[in-house]
Amino acid sequence: MIRIAIVAPCGPVNQDSLRAGKRNLLSHFPNCEFIEAPNLDRESGFLAGTDQERIDSLRWAFESSDADIIWIARGGFGAVRIALCMPWTDFAAESRARLVGYSDATLLLSSFAQAGGTAIHGPMIAADIARGFEDERTWNSIERLILSNDKKLNDDFLFEGRVLNNLPVKIDGRILAGNLTVFASTAGTKIFPSTKDKVIFLEDVNEEPYRVERALCQLLLSGFFDEAKAVVFGNFSNCIAETPERSFT
Amino acid sequence: MIRIAIVAPCGPVNQDSLRAGKRNLLSHFPNCEFIEAPNLDRESGFLAGTDQERIDSLRWAFESSDADIIWIARGGFGAVRIALCMPWTDFAAESRARLVGYSDATLLLSSFAQAGGTAIHGPMIAADIARGFEDERTWNSIERLILSNDKKLNDDFLFEGRVLNNLPVKIDGRILAGNLTVFASTAGTKIFPSTKDKVIFLEDVNEEPYRVERALCQLLLSGFFDEAKAVVFGNFSNCIAETPERSFT
Repeated sequence: MIRIAIVAPCGPVNQDSLRAGKRNLLSHFPNCEFIEAPNLDRESGFLAGTDQERIDSLRWAFESSDADIIWIARGGFGAVRIALCMPWTDFAAESRARLVGYSDATLLLSSFAQAGGTAIHGPMIAADIARGFEDERTWNSIERLILSNDKKLNDDFLFEGRVLNNLPVKIDGRILAGNLTVFASTAGTKIFPSTKDKVIFLEDVNEEPYRVERALCQLLLSGFFDEAKAVVFGNFSNCIAETPERSFT
Repeated sequence: MIRIAIVAPCGPVNQDSLRAGKRNLLSHFPNCEFIEAPNLDRESGFLAGTDQERIDSLRWAFESSDADIIWIARGGFGAVRIALCMPWTDFAAESRARLVGYSDATLLLSSFAQAGGTAIHGPMIAADIARGFEDERTWNSIERLILSNDKKLNDDFLFEGRVLNNLPVKIDGRILAGNLTVFASTAGTKIFPSTKDKVIFLEDVNEEPYRVERALCQLLLSGFFDEAKAVVFGNFSNCIAETPERSFT
């Protein structure tokens, strides 16, 4: 069995989505078993419970859940309020678990990875996984990258892209993946991740083009891209202008 | 006559608003004369012309317009793209002009003030002034603070507030005023303003509560408040949640 601890360090979790996500995962991978953080049904404004409840739940997952995977239920907002309170180095040293999520969870992933843990920028149980995927390829990736933690990727994982700069076509490097706005919101703070020799993947959702530009400016001016090997732009979902005639494409 | 150079270093200027703003100012203060930056009618997506056009226009205002006041027409977005290209120290040393604006122009004001210039966080010609003010008090403030540059304020300028912290009731200090999100977007960069011994005034508009919180977190974690004397929260217009049941008040 693969032991999965579901945690909610960011926004409150819709219980129907949580059930749908678990059902979808189980129907593809019957060898999963779930244990749930105590705050999974908590709601405090736009947070899944108080800061202390969310901190305690993450500690529970890393320190006593004995999980193979600590899987973040959903993003939203709230990671920045607790990311600095976590003993990431202890977590990385004492837990075998890999941490999975994206969006607002970016900060937790990058902090854990920086401390030596395995962080996987991947779909979340009460979000994408609850909605399901039409292509088998995504389920295959979940199996190999997340469930089996198979780091030997082959050509199946190639995806189509467009080279925007005059970079060489082949680049090796560790991946640092995350949400553009969240990375920008850590500039100037102690949780701003190191990007040295990294291949940076960026995504975002629901940000107007001028906000995307502002975040890119902040990262540019704070040195985020200076020592990176490459930058890859992933999905920027619904990042469209409210008044397109007053924007750029 | 008071010589006013109108500039557009941020978003594109609505020409009707510009006319209305000039008309409103003139009807209250017939001793104003206006000269206009070459890019005042330019529009390039969400910017008032290219970066170079906006840079050239600001340089024109400081270097050759011979203005008493350099008045920013409107905010929007774009200041961060050019703020680092400006010779602020030369501007402050060689021009007598005071710079007026707010919102996205925050960066220009704080850079100019930091270099020793006089920056006034005040209404903008093609924005608030175009819409007009119902109370004479605002027009009086414009006359005394901006047009006459009278720094000796008296009780007329007191405004109602609520003390949130256990601060003493009377605090002296230079004011640093600006847009919360814009200040946050300079964290980690060279244009992050010094707040030592300052009384910080913050405002914002059209930001969801979680965005306000994220910006406050970033400023907190990057030391923005550490050496300030006080923080004053001004108007946070339309900073309301799209789904209020999932937010805080």
